[in-house]
Amino acid sequence: MEESSKNEINKPLISRIAELEKENDRKLSGVQKILLTTDGSITAILDVLYGKIDLDTLSQHFASANLEQAKLVDANVGDELNFREVLLNLRGKPLMYAASEIPLSRCSEGIAADLMRADIPIGRILKNHQVESRRRINGIYVEKPNEKLQKIFHTDEDMLARDYAIISGGNILMWIKEVFPISYFL
Amino acid sequence: MEESSKNEINKPLISRIAELEKENDRKLSGVQKILLTTDGSITAILDVLYGKIDLDTLSQHFASANLEQAKLVDANVGDELNFREVLLNLRGKPLMYAASEIPLSRCSEGIAADLMRADIPIGRILKNHQVESRRRINGIYVEKPNEKLQKIFHTDEDMLARDYAIISGGNILMWIKEVFPISYFL
Repeated sequence: MEESSKNEINKPLISRIAELEKENDRKLSGVQKILLTTDGSITAILDVLYGKIDLDTLSQHFASANLEQAKLVDANVGDELNFREVLLNLRGKPLMYAASEIPLSRCSEGIAADLMRADIPIGRILKNHQVESRRRINGIYVEKPNEKLQKIFHTDEDMLARDYAIISGGNILMWIKEVFPISYFL
Repeated sequence: MEESSKNEINKPLISRIAELEKENDRKLSGVQKILLTTDGSITAILDVLYGKIDLDTLSQHFASANLEQAKLVDANVGDELNFREVLLNLRGKPLMYAASEIPLSRCSEGIAADLMRADIPIGRILKNHQVESRRRINGIYVEKPNEKLQKIFHTDEDMLARDYAIISGGNILMWIKEVFPISYFL
């Protein structure tokens, strides 16, 4: 890496947030910017902002990866993946929707069991199992909600969203997409 | 770990923030709470909130660990440590003071060089070198500023502070303390 670029590593994030604000002609709040860009645990942030939040598992299943799914986690077509959709909520009020895709072969037994068994957010699972990792953000965007999200959040307003990979041991351990209405966390 | 406690991992953070608010009879802002508790990069958060922030190195040197210093990073007395004090700032306006202590033997050559050579915040160093890690918060507190901090921030008001370890490869790679005036990030 060039000496001059060593302080520029977060520039793509800064530029992307500025771009989103311009495209949508609105300022994002500090908390929104943090939720869209942090490489830390989102659950921990929501826990501390709201007191302990809850997780509703909307769906959870295992299936073989198709090409598109395999690409997201840098796995092979046919590899077994865990798919999970959850709703982080505060006493029933939805805060954030999250979808995750996790190659089973890269999880410890303990992590796999926690993913399947109980309503535990991924941030808490990683912390409980003391996983060392880094997060690589793939994209940050504004999108229209599909029917499912409209129903969950009771609104058809634009959504803020991002997707990222949690990397551990040099491999993608988890791919995650998080979505919330643009009027949340103002 | 008990099944019932798997969702309680962030409870100490939540309780500690509530305690601080009560003891000091003031509410902390959302951004303050996040800065005090996140396991993500603080530099990345400040970068995104303010546009790219700068780092001033106030001091930087190597020395052998005394007992107290060795304990902070789980090293041996006499081990060589890098000590650094920096000021994260926005075009000269101070945002946050940070002190770090880093056992040289646990750093790659590249990381050690970046620590010594240039004004690069630790969050950016870890990201540049794609370090996989986890952060373990030791304490979050309100404290009176010493003379140095009073001079840096031009105030004698109370400071918010925390200290934490960045753990990588099962060892403490870095110990960090961060401090900022209680009226910042409101």
